[in-house]
Amino acid sequence: MAEQSLDALIVTSLPNILYLTNFNGSSGIVVMTGSRALFITDFRYLSAISETRGSGHECPGLELVTVESSYDVTLAELLADMSSTRIGFEAAHLSVARHRWLLTALATNPKVPELIPTEGVVERARVRKDAYELTVLREAGRRLSVVASEMVAEIRPGRTERDVALSIDWRIRDAGFERSAFETIVAAGPNAALPHAKPGERKLAEGDLVVLDFGGVYDSYCVDLTRTVSVGRASPRAREVYGAVLKAHDLAIEAVKPGISRFQIDGAARASLAGVGMAEAFGHGTGHGLGIEVHEEPRISRRRHGVDAADDEQQDAVAPGMVFTIEPGAYFPGWSGVRIEDDVLVTETGVELLTHVTTELLEI
Amino acid sequence: MAEQSLDALIVTSLPNILYLTNFNGSSGIVVMTGSRALFITDFRYLSAISETRGSGHECPGLELVTVESSYDVTLAELLADMSSTRIGFEAAHLSVARHRWLLTALATNPKVPELIPTEGVVERARVRKDAYELTVLREAGRRLSVVASEMVAEIRPGRTERDVALSIDWRIRDAGFERSAFETIVAAGPNAALPHAKPGERKLAEGDLVVLDFGGVYDSYCVDLTRTVSVGRASPRAREVYGAVLKAHDLAIEAVKPGISRFQIDGAARASLAGVGMAEAFGHGTGHGLGIEVHEEPRISRRRHGVDAADDEQQDAVAPGMVFTIEPGAYFPGWSGVRIEDDVLVTETGVELLTHVTTELLEI
Repeated sequence: MAEQSLDALIVTSLPNILYLTNFNGSSGIVVMTGSRALFITDFRYLSAISETRGSGHECPGLELVTVESSYDVTLAELLADMSSTRIGFEAAHLSVARHRWLLTALATNPKVPELIPTEGVVERARVRKDAYELTVLREAGRRLSVVASEMVAEIRPGRTERDVALSIDWRIRDAGFERSAFETIVAAGPNAALPHAKPGERKLAEGDLVVLDFGGVYDSYCVDLTRTVSVGRASPRAREVYGAVLKAHDLAIEAVKPGISRFQIDGAARASLAGVGMAEAFGHGTGHGLGIEVHEEPRISRRRHGVDAADDEQQDAVAPGMVFTIEPGAYFPGWSGVRIEDDVLVTETGVELLTHVTTELLEI
Repeated sequence: MAEQSLDALIVTSLPNILYLTNFNGSSGIVVMTGSRALFITDFRYLSAISETRGSGHECPGLELVTVESSYDVTLAELLADMSSTRIGFEAAHLSVARHRWLLTALATNPKVPELIPTEGVVERARVRKDAYELTVLREAGRRLSVVASEMVAEIRPGRTERDVALSIDWRIRDAGFERSAFETIVAAGPNAALPHAKPGERKLAEGDLVVLDFGGVYDSYCVDLTRTVSVGRASPRAREVYGAVLKAHDLAIEAVKPGISRFQIDGAARASLAGVGMAEAFGHGTGHGLGIEVHEEPRISRRRHGVDAADDEQQDAVAPGMVFTIEPGAYFPGWSGVRIEDDVLVTETGVELLTHVTTELLEI
């Protein structure tokens, strides 16, 4: 805020609000000034917030402002009462409609403040996890690993993908997660060729490869894990593809250390798959950041033409405290696919795995 | 589009995209012109979309455009290739950041098109459900009612709220829903005073009122239901509050018919609770629309000062094909609370209940 000479910052992104205040409801606006943190919320959440008082989840010094008519009316009234002249807002998390409304509402003020678009002010703080966040993420990774090693009991011929997904979701909750971090993927046989398949009525059959991709939210933080297993004996082709993806997975993890760019980590997996003729089969990025959101910075991916800056490896370097997935895959439409995913933390000296479960090809 | 003389409309809201195309993935942009529907999506979803070909979920005539670098780069390139001069966008579903980026990208075109903010173009079509949608919503309501009548088997002293919520979520999936429509609420004893309580470690105890609020997504459409039950015999106060909320619920449902305003429906519930001194205890709206989103238009609520137009009851009238919840409640911090919720459809002549489960106070 000081860098951009802002008197105040309007925070409208819910993950950013959770990061700043510990509030995990579905509606709220934070207004930060140099010395105050104001939180606009409605009737539904007042008791929930007052219940955090004295607990480890309390946000000290948070001033509550209650919505009477609508959030944006309350925000405009609050801003009118403050003497701020340069007010930042989150350009990626405020719609054009709300921005236009706010401009009109503020135009009636005696002294009309300026609304300054900002990008990633809170996100930049979120990308390197602090000690508390790492404690939570390590525990979450440990619990998800237990789910991953035990969920193989759910795999047997005749059960539907949908049925197995439901059982995995049960296990995730039973392991202490608040909820699944995303819609669990169970994709068998040819469906495994779809990286984002929805679990359906297909029954697992002898010889199927099954991609199982699932995650959990633990104390507001997300972890994510994928294994591919074989129902019965794996075919030679299945072994070959599995081996290639596993090698890419291992090489990408080995590449992780402070100072290396996210593009180089992606490149380690991609070059390995390209070396065995599977470049085309790997159509997505190698990984994504984990935290309050299941997809956040850093993106471990190819440099995108026209989107990522061309030549600044330093800016794209990973740093201690960053947490992300490594999840290469190879997909062959009409046949099947393989994906293997673990979660890693960049340490001062290299890499720490947050998930711990065998990467051998299990034949169940 | 014709009303606003638009050559094209950029649709960025995922629920609107689902409504227009049946696509239910997590990334996509639709560009509509007078004669074409273009759908920008990425590698992950191509096979899933081609698999709908020939099925009831196919969107006929949809032209696919594949993302190479990023969605917005692809969108800008597509718009540059079209001869549109007036391009609408969804002002409520495009961030200031994306809008600014798009303006800059389009400024390099030989003929720079104009970007016109629009509000609710697709939403206005969504608010009155068509015959197909009503078939889906009736079936969804029927299935959720079965879950509601059977979930009482999960209520017994000693089980935690969290445990009961997990069992209800299992039953929702087992009843054929894709997923729960929102985080299931199981709030016992004093926790029932929090309208949006998260299920926790509190154990159900003799004499507790328990608010159970849950929903499911069936073939992409949401239904939502709440019952409040008593663990063992209900106290006289519990009976009194329950009776008051049930009366408000029944009166609001009776009020529903074409032409009545959403404020009048809310007023029917609110006046009834006020009549027994419980006006302050009912701090939220009476209901919300249901459809692809679990909270959509129409909002059955009080007229909000400075937000809703002052004197146009006609504009706020409900009409045949609208589907919404009726869910009055009464909450007493420190004591407990009651909420009773059903889903209704406005018919040509009055109202049809979509959920069918007893509203008697169950003592379990």
